[in-house]
Amino acid sequence: MNINSPVPVGVMGASGYVGQELLRLLTRHPGAAVVFATAQSAAGETLDGVTLVRVDDAPLARVEIVLSALPHGVSGRYVREARAAGKRAVDLSSDFRLSPEAVYGLTEVTRPRLPAAELVANPGCYPTAALLALLPLAQHGLIDQSREVVIDAASGVTGAGRTPRRELLFGEVAEDFRAYGVGNDHRHLPELKATLAREGGFTGDLVFTPHLLPVKRGILETIHVPLTRVVDQATAEGIYDAVYAAEPCVRVLRGALPSLKDVVYRNRVAIGVALVANVRRPRLTVIAAIDNLVKGAAGQAIQNMNVMLGLPETAGLVC
Amino acid sequence: MNINSPVPVGVMGASGYVGQELLRLLTRHPGAAVVFATAQSAAGETLDGVTLVRVDDAPLARVEIVLSALPHGVSGRYVREARAAGKRAVDLSSDFRLSPEAVYGLTEVTRPRLPAAELVANPGCYPTAALLALLPLAQHGLIDQSREVVIDAASGVTGAGRTPRRELLFGEVAEDFRAYGVGNDHRHLPELKATLAREGGFTGDLVFTPHLLPVKRGILETIHVPLTRVVDQATAEGIYDAVYAAEPCVRVLRGALPSLKDVVYRNRVAIGVALVANVRRPRLTVIAAIDNLVKGAAGQAIQNMNVMLGLPETAGLVC
Amino acid sequence: MNINSPVPVGVMGASGYVGQELLRLLTRHPGAAVVFATAQSAAGETLDGVTLVRVDDAPLARVEIVLSALPHGVSGRYVREARAAGKRAVDLSSDFRLSPEAVYGLTEVTRPRLPAAELVANPGCYPTAALLALLPLAQHGLIDQSREVVIDAASGVTGAGRTPRRELLFGEVAEDFRAYGVGNDHRHLPELKATLAREGGFTGDLVFTPHLLPVKRGILETIHVPLTRVVDQATAEGIYDAVYAAEPCVRVLRGALPSLKDVVYRNRVAIGVALVANVRRPRLTVIAAIDNLVKGAAGQAIQNMNVMLGLPETAGLVC
Amino acid sequence: MNINSPVPVGVMGASGYVGQELLRLLTRHPGAAVVFATAQSAAGETLDGVTLVRVDDAPLARVEIVLSALPHGVSGRYVREARAAGKRAVDLSSDFRLSPEAVYGLTEVTRPRLPAAELVANPGCYPTAALLALLPLAQHGLIDQSREVVIDAASGVTGAGRTPRRELLFGEVAEDFRAYGVGNDHRHLPELKATLAREGGFTGDLVFTPHLLPVKRGILETIHVPLTRVVDQATAEGIYDAVYAAEPCVRVLRGALPSLKDVVYRNRVAIGVALVANVRRPRLTVIAAIDNLVKGAAGQAIQNMNVMLGLPETAGLVC
Repeated sequence: MNINSPVPVGVMGASGYVGQELLRLLTRHPGAAVVFATAQSAAGETLDGVTLVRVDDAPLARVEIVLSALPHGVSGRYVREARAAGKRAVDLSSDFRLSPEAVYGLTEVTRPRLPAAELVANPGCYPTAALLALLPLAQHGLIDQSREVVIDAASGVTGAGRTPRRELLFGEVAEDFRAYGVGNDHRHLPELKATLAREGGFTGDLVFTPHLLPVKRGILETIHVPLTRVVDQATAEGIYDAVYAAEPCVRVLRGALPSLKDVVYRNRVAIGVALVANVRRPRLTVIAAIDNLVKGAAGQAIQNMNVMLGLPETAGLVC
Repeated sequence: MNINSPVPVGVMGASGYVGQELLRLLTRHPGAAVVFATAQSAAGETLDGVTLVRVDDAPLARVEIVLSALPHGVSGRYVREARAAGKRAVDLSSDFRLSPEAVYGLTEVTRPRLPAAELVANPGCYPTAALLALLPLAQHGLIDQSREVVIDAASGVTGAGRTPRRELLFGEVAEDFRAYGVGNDHRHLPELKATLAREGGFTGDLVFTPHLLPVKRGILETIHVPLTRVVDQATAEGIYDAVYAAEPCVRVLRGALPSLKDVVYRNRVAIGVALVANVRRPRLTVIAAIDNLVKGAAGQAIQNMNVMLGLPETAGLVC
Repeated sequence: MNINSPVPVGVMGASGYVGQELLRLLTRHPGAAVVFATAQSAAGETLDGVTLVRVDDAPLARVEIVLSALPHGVSGRYVREARAAGKRAVDLSSDFRLSPEAVYGLTEVTRPRLPAAELVANPGCYPTAALLALLPLAQHGLIDQSREVVIDAASGVTGAGRTPRRELLFGEVAEDFRAYGVGNDHRHLPELKATLAREGGFTGDLVFTPHLLPVKRGILETIHVPLTRVVDQATAEGIYDAVYAAEPCVRVLRGALPSLKDVVYRNRVAIGVALVANVRRPRLTVIAAIDNLVKGAAGQAIQNMNVMLGLPETAGLVC
Repeated sequence: MNINSPVPVGVMGASGYVGQELLRLLTRHPGAAVVFATAQSAAGETLDGVTLVRVDDAPLARVEIVLSALPHGVSGRYVREARAAGKRAVDLSSDFRLSPEAVYGLTEVTRPRLPAAELVANPGCYPTAALLALLPLAQHGLIDQSREVVIDAASGVTGAGRTPRRELLFGEVAEDFRAYGVGNDHRHLPELKATLAREGGFTGDLVFTPHLLPVKRGILETIHVPLTRVVDQATAEGIYDAVYAAEPCVRVLRGALPSLKDVVYRNRVAIGVALVANVRRPRLTVIAAIDNLVKGAAGQAIQNMNVMLGLPETAGLVC
C-alpha cells in the first residue's frame, strides 16, 4: 500500500450511526484520505476533523470513490449521480442489493468480483451474519431443505438509526427486549433468500424474526438448521474451518459460542456451532455474531473498498 | 379474606433474588403474615422488616405454610422437614417438579388440584412462559408434531442467581448478549416436555435455546410453532382468548406482541401471536413474556399459595 | 378510609412518564377512583383500564380533585380552569411552585398547610431530595452560610420526559454520563433557594449541577455541606432521626449511604451522611436518593392529595 | 519508528480489565512486540494471539521493558524483580506512585523526566483526570486555596476490577448509582494531593467523592473550583488552551462539556469549563472525562512507554 498517495474518498451521509462509523474508520485508514463527508442538518459542523458539507455541495470531482450511508430510497439517487461523474461507489443502503447493476459485496463470498466492480452494494447487517453462517452448510448440501430454517436475530439499537423516535428512547429500550417485524416479511428477507439461492443453492423456507436488544451495538443470530445427515461437532466445525481458514475477518470458534463482546468494534464475524440433542432428526444450531456498524455496515464497506482498490483487504480495520 | 387473622407463613431462602422478591411480596400481602425468613450468611440482618434466621433455626411450628426458594438440591431436604412437621409447602426449586409427591403449580393449568395439595412444585421460569404459550395450541391439536417446535428464550440476569460469578459481572454482561446451555439439554427441558405431554398431549420434538439478556428482570420467548392447518390471525388469537378469558394473570394481545416492559414487576404472562408469511407450510410465531422473578417464581408461588389456602387468587399480587 | 366511596379523581396529562406513573398508582389506590385521564395524541387509547380523553373534553364536573402532569407553561392554564370549576388541584408542573396562590407540597415540611389547601404545587424532583436533605441541617443552624453548598445531582432519563429527542435515544445515553445545565442556572434553583430560605432560614450560596444517568429512574444527590461546628457521625444522624422519626416516607440510614435501588418504585427519600476527613474546616457529605417519578413527582402528589382529602397519608403508596 | 525491529515487551497481569486492554493495545502497536503476558488461573489460555504464562515463568531476559497490571501490593515485588534483571518498567499499580524510586508518569506533566526513567509509576485513573483538569488553574494561581475544591467523580464498573463480588454483579449495578468510599479518605487522595502540591503548588483542601456508574468504561469528574479572581469563559478556556495546545491526547472543549462518549476507547482526556452564576464569590466548574482503562491506565502506560523508548508518543494509541 502506497501510504504516500492515499486514495481520495468521499462519504455521503455521515451523521447517522453508520456514517459516523465510516468516517471514524476512514479518517484513520492508512491508504485513504477523506476529501468530503456530507450531512444535512449538521452541515458546517466538524466530525473527526472533517467539515461536513451538504450532499448537493459534495466535490465529487475530487474523489476516486464514494461510500454512501444515505438512507434507503435516497442513496440510490446520489450514488447514480456519483457514477455518472465517473466515480466508483460502495452503497451501504439497500437500494442496489437486489439489482444487477451492482456487485453484492459480501466480501468473503464475492471477493473475486470486486476488483472490477464499479458499484458495490454492501449487504444488510442481518443478512451478513446469516449468510456467512449458512452458506458453508448450504454449499456442502447439509441443509435439509424440506424443513424450515429458523433464524432468531437480535440487534443493538444503533441498527434502527439515529432519527429520534419514541420507541428508541433510553426510557423505552433500557431493561426491555422485544421482537419486531414479526410475520416473516422483514425487508432483509428477499436479500437473504436471493443470496442463499444464488451462492448456496438453497431454496428452502426461512423464518426470520428480528428482536431489539438493549445494547448499542451488535447482532447475534441463533440459527436453527435442519440437517440432511447426522454430523459430529468436529465435522461441523471442520466445514467452517475449510471454508474460512484463510479469512482474516471470520472467526470460527471451537467448542464455544460467540457473544457480542467477541465482535463489537471489530470487522469480524464470529461463528460457533452446537449439535442438537434430544430430537429425532439431525439438527445443528449455529450462532453468528457481528458488530452491526462494522462487519454489518461501515467495516465491510471499507473491506470491499480495499479489495476494489487493490489495497490490503484489512487496511484500516481491526478484525 | 379475613384480614384480621392473616395466615402465618415462613420463607426459606430469602437472600437470593427470588427469595427477596418472595419476602417483598409477602410482607405486603393482606392475607399473610411472615413469621420467619431464613438466610445463611445474612442471618441476623433485617429485610423488609423481617429479621433473618438460619434455616435450621426456623420456627416451623409457628407457621401454616412454607415457601422455599432454597437452591436446587438443598430445598428438597428442608421442604421434607417442613412436611414432616405437618406443614404445607410451595417449593420453588426444581426438586419436586418431576415428582409424583407434588402437585405441579402452573396455576392456570393445574388450579383444581391445588386446594387439596399439601406440596406444590412451583414451575421453572422458562417452562412457565413456554407452557402457557404452547398448551392452548397443543390442546386444540394445532401443533404439527412431525415438525420441531423451536423456542428461543432470553432471560434477564437475575435468573442466574445472586452468587458472585465472573460471567455475571456488570463488566461482562452489559452491552453483551449470548446463548448459553446450547445443545438442547437445558435442565428445564424435561419439565417442559413432561408437562406438554401430560397436559397437552404433545410428544413431538422441542429445540430450546436460552440466552442471557443485559437486563435485570424478564423472560421473552419466541416460539416457532409448525401448525397442522392454516389459521388466520383472529382464529389464532381466539384460541388463546377462549382458554384464558377468565384468567386474571394472562394477557392475550391483539395484533401486537409483548415486550418485557409489559410484564416486569407484575404476576402476568403476556402472549401475542403472528402468522408466518413466505413459507410453504403453516406456521405460527408465538411470543410470551413474564417477569422471571414474579410469574416465573415468587409471584406464581404466592398465586399457588393463595389457591391452596382459599384466599383470593391475586391477593398480594399485581397482575 | 372509606373504601366504599372512593374519591373521584381526574388526571391531566397521562401520557408522559410522570402521568403514566400517576395513573398506575391512582388506579390501584384504595381510596380514589380515576374518573378521567387526559392525553393529546393518545386520546382514545386505554391505559391501566382508563380510556384517555383530550384535556378539553375532561369531565371536570365529575371529580373532586385533579392532578396535573401537563407540561410546564400549559398546566397552569388547565389547573386554573379546574379551580374555576371549584375543584381542588395538585399541580405537578413548575407553574405554581413560586406562586403565593398555591401551597408548596413538600409533604414532610408543609403538611399542616395541606388539609385546607385548594391548590398544591408539587415540588420539583431535584428540590425534593435536596430540601429533605438540607432542611434539618439548616433548621439546626449547622450550615456555615459563609461557604458554598455544592450539590451534584444525577437523574435517570425519565426525568427528561418522553418527547423524542436525539440526545435521549438509547444509542446516545447508554454507556454515557454527562453534566447538563451547568453554570448554576438550572430552572429548579430558584425553587430550591426560596424554600431553603423560607423553611430553613438558609440564604447562603448554592452550586447545583445536574447530570444525566444511563438509568430509567432515580435521582441521587451528593450534597457537600460546610458546617458551623464539628459534629460526630451519631450527632449528624441524630439530627435527621429527630426530624424524621415519625415520617413513613423518609429513611435515614445509619452508617450507610443510599443508592438508587433503595428507592426506585417507592415513595421514599433515603438519606445517609458521612463526615469529611482530611480537611481543615468541618464538613458533612449528605447523600439523598429518590425515585424521580414517585417521591419526586407522582407519588408525592398522591401523598399530598391524601393529606388534603383526609385519607391515610400513604394510601396507595409503597414507602 | 523502526517498524522492522519492534521493541520486545512483557505484560504482567493480563487477565484483569486493565491487563486485557494493555494486551489489546500492545498487540496492535506498530513499534512493540509482546514477548510474554502473564496470568495466574488463565495461564495456558491464548488472548489476542498471546499464550499466557504464569508470572513466575515470565521470560524476563527476552524483553526490554515490562508493563505491570498486577494488583496493588503484588505488582511491586515483580516489578522489582524485573528491575533487578535490568529491565525498565511501567507499573500500573499504586505501589510506586508515592515513591521516590519511580518517575510519576502523568505524561503531559512529567514528560521531560520519562526518557531517562528506569521505572515509571503510572497514575491512578481518578488522579489522571483530576490533575489534568486542576494543574493549569493551580499553576496560574487561580485556585482560591482558602476554600475547598470539591470533586465528584463517577467511574464505570471496570474500574473496580474483574474479581467476582456480589456488589459488582449486573443484577446489582444495572439501574443503580451510588457513592462509595465517602468520607474523603479514598486511597487515591494522597497521590492526588501530593501531585497537586509538587506540580501545581496547591496545598489547599480537597473533598473527593467517588461514585459507581452503571457503565462499563469511563470516568467523569465534576470539579468545583473556588477562584482567586473573576474570569470570563474565554479566559478560562484560554488557560487550558495555552497549557495543552500542543498535546495530542488532551482535548479542550469550547463552550461545551465532555461526556463519556467523547473519550471511551481513546487515550484522551476531554476538559470543559463553565462559569458559576448566582454565587457571591468567583467559582468555576471544570468537567474532565477519560476512559478509565485507556488514558486512566493502559493507554497512558503505553504513552509513557513510547516516550521512554523514544517512539512516537501516540504510537499504537487513538487519541
